[in-house]
Amino acid sequence: MVRPSTTAQPVTGDDLAHMLASRLETGTVTADPGILAAYRTDHATFTPAGEPAALVRARTTADVAATLRLATELGVPVVPQGARTGLTGGANAVTGCVLLSLEKMDRIIGIDPVEQIGTVQPGVVNAAFSRAAAGEGLFYPPDPASWESSTLGGNIATNAGGFCCVKYGVTRDYVRGLEVVRADGSVMRTGRRTAKGVAGYDLTGLFVGSEGTLGVITEAILALRPATAEPLTAVAFFATAVDACRLIVELMAGTPRLSMVELMDAPSIEAVRTFRDPGFPPGIGAALLVQSDTEAAVAELAGFAALCARHGAEVLTASDREESRMLLEARRMVGPAVESLGTILPDDVCVPRRALPDLLAAVGAIAERTGLTITCAGHAGDGNMHPTIIFDAGDPDQTALARQAFDDIMRLGLDLGGTVTGEHGVGLLKRGWLRTELDPVAAATHDALKRALDPQGILNPGKVIAAPEGG
Amino acid sequence: MVRPSTTAQPVTGDDLAHMLASRLETGTVTADPGILAAYRTDHATFTPAGEPAALVRARTTADVAATLRLATELGVPVVPQGARTGLTGGANAVTGCVLLSLEKMDRIIGIDPVEQIGTVQPGVVNAAFSRAAAGEGLFYPPDPASWESSTLGGNIATNAGGFCCVKYGVTRDYVRGLEVVRADGSVMRTGRRTAKGVAGYDLTGLFVGSEGTLGVITEAILALRPATAEPLTAVAFFATAVDACRLIVELMAGTPRLSMVELMDAPSIEAVRTFRDPGFPPGIGAALLVQSDTEAAVAELAGFAALCARHGAEVLTASDREESRMLLEARRMVGPAVESLGTILPDDVCVPRRALPDLLAAVGAIAERTGLTITCAGHAGDGNMHPTIIFDAGDPDQTALARQAFDDIMRLGLDLGGTVTGEHGVGLLKRGWLRTELDPVAAATHDALKRALDPQGILNPGKVIAAPEGG
Repeated sequence: MVRPSTTAQPVTGDDLAHMLASRLETGTVTADPGILAAYRTDHATFTPAGEPAALVRARTTADVAATLRLATELGVPVVPQGARTGLTGGANAVTGCVLLSLEKMDRIIGIDPVEQIGTVQPGVVNAAFSRAAAGEGLFYPPDPASWESSTLGGNIATNAGGFCCVKYGVTRDYVRGLEVVRADGSVMRTGRRTAKGVAGYDLTGLFVGSEGTLGVITEAILALRPATAEPLTAVAFFATAVDACRLIVELMAGTPRLSMVELMDAPSIEAVRTFRDPGFPPGIGAALLVQSDTEAAVAELAGFAALCARHGAEVLTASDREESRMLLEARRMVGPAVESLGTILPDDVCVPRRALPDLLAAVGAIAERTGLTITCAGHAGDGNMHPTIIFDAGDPDQTALARQAFDDIMRLGLDLGGTVTGEHGVGLLKRGWLRTELDPVAAATHDALKRALDPQGILNPGKVIAAPEGG
Repeated sequence: MVRPSTTAQPVTGDDLAHMLASRLETGTVTADPGILAAYRTDHATFTPAGEPAALVRARTTADVAATLRLATELGVPVVPQGARTGLTGGANAVTGCVLLSLEKMDRIIGIDPVEQIGTVQPGVVNAAFSRAAAGEGLFYPPDPASWESSTLGGNIATNAGGFCCVKYGVTRDYVRGLEVVRADGSVMRTGRRTAKGVAGYDLTGLFVGSEGTLGVITEAILALRPATAEPLTAVAFFATAVDACRLIVELMAGTPRLSMVELMDAPSIEAVRTFRDPGFPPGIGAALLVQSDTEAAVAELAGFAALCARHGAEVLTASDREESRMLLEARRMVGPAVESLGTILPDDVCVPRRALPDLLAAVGAIAERTGLTITCAGHAGDGNMHPTIIFDAGDPDQTALARQAFDDIMRLGLDLGGTVTGEHGVGLLKRGWLRTELDPVAAATHDALKRALDPQGILNPGKVIAAPEGG
């Protein structure tokens, strides 16, 4: 049975900080209440956070190993953290824990154009790495919305997605090897530096997306791709989001090689208009933004425009890089625009593409029923949408309605053959829903793996894997 | 401690066959000695095989589940098998085992062009699926040399590679979800049907490449890609294989988007000439075959030709599909040509691309020292080469030299920063070398996962994971 050590430990916070400080480099450990408060949570709504006992800002793998060795000795929980941009409470403190921040381990160790790999510490920010790769004529596709601030370690721990996934896949597809510190402080290498390799089990893949519950990532070898052609952008306007979704189903059956297929529904467009007007025509019910990054981009976008014409949708194709950038900016603006409207509860369902029209229609019905604004933008080419509920957190009735709407959307995602999380992860927010999604044998297999790799249950306890009953 | 049940069981072979027959559909179970002998081994050299007690040719997931339930009750080992085209003894019988063949579960359940996925049973032959996908305008890239006979279940269990990997990755990159029967006969679904999903641990990836030691795959959801342009082929001729490798290093640093980069050294070319002359010019020391499958193929191959010219290599670009096919045929012929020369011991090292010149030079030196013919062809764009030792198995001295050369090549691969297996897997042949490649913590983590998922050690015992000492 996994026993998350979430309860108070026999060691006090001060004692723990002193013991850690005696084993780690000077300036690595703090128990300063102000700093602890700042590191206590990630960016999630509706997720509880406990009181951390200490914060370690690791500078080396040895710091991480020493922290975990002590935590194992004392049975103290450890919560690994990147930039805390997560949306599920996965990096939230549990009471009595050591917060283990990797953000100071922020060195790009190397980029190798012959092997087409980069080697990085976990605290490197996604955008810094992407730009360094571009400087070598290479391309690191995973581009979560948080790419300017989130760390590669956090991206790996949550298997982050982004705009490019529709053509280029997710973070997991780019992780070739890891250095991982196990719960007991032992250090191992997984995977490989070579382009291929099948020596043993896929430990690398197991740690990707495990949200700090199986081990702590201290280095990663990431695959890179040759740079693409400069992407060309087009936007199509529809009367309704359901109309746009019908076109997507037909578009994807034509197996295009588009590198972006993003949808904004009417409430998303309205939110962006209030925030910073993108100049979309008035009265539209949805916008679909697409990109092609191949040598044949002009022909591919002409094909897209022809399909839109058959569906009666107006299309605007960017004539240059600046126009492309402005169109993309409208999509990137959805996040901050929606956040400016009130408290938000973002969802992250991913459904089969065929089910998109039903998803958008049903989300609209939930908004109507609850009277809440729910924006629905996202990576429609992948079926991964982010219905986001906006509410007044000071109003208990609205709050209760928002929670209900959130649950209704996850139920809907599952009923449509999808998953409760396309790219944000489980964290605290969706532990119960993970159990609903998994069949009982798959759930038991999760528990068996957790027990095998973290027998004391000290690694990010209570996240992803809910404590089995009686555990 | 994992206890492989490789020793004789208290149940006799006949008893076991009767017990299985009573639980399975008629005609599924046999203990016929002639049939058992035919299913006793895969295509590997130098790997022992035990005496199987019974063969189950499963037709349904229920057959697989019933077989594993009984095996768990009795503590009998189970060896899952596809088409037995493997090269490492991974499908070889262990004494007293049930051979569990999946080859009769050979139905393509569906291909969905909107979701760009195919759903298959494990016994579907790779080529049958690839052709069905092509019929829908889709592309299933993994193309091991055995693609006309090997099964998708076997490809998944070994994480098979092929010619396309240099651009399109390996089997793991295309497995989206699985149905797996656990050791105790319980059945679970892993992964998803949707394009994205991060709900829980990557069980799917863990079973891919686990060679039947963690569970039995009974269904798979495979990702497909849009069809590519018809590939254009070119071949370049070099004075020596080391010269060709030097060009590859420069070629790959230029981040080309070639869909094939295959090398044949002089002994490989000689073997093919004897078998079926491909019409290569006389006196050459190596041939490098490349393809491009983009809209810009002509320009990309012109870039390749210009690079070759700078290296003083003659280049021949196919003018049409038939010429492309003939060039490719020369590469595909290496396997059968080499097999016709004597007993073969194929290796499968994968090294960083930069290390290719050193690898080829050192393999040449090993051939010279031992006096054995060693052909060296392979997926040079990935650094994955198949040095293949040809010897007379009736000659004990040659046999000893061949084994020594085989080990020397694996040591060499590791010393060059590579892996002992790029795509063939571990099986029986490389269990010891797996332990050499893994660091002690990674090895212990393998053992912990095996114990967690197969506590009795009945799943393909003795393969991949060598029994820990005293285990």
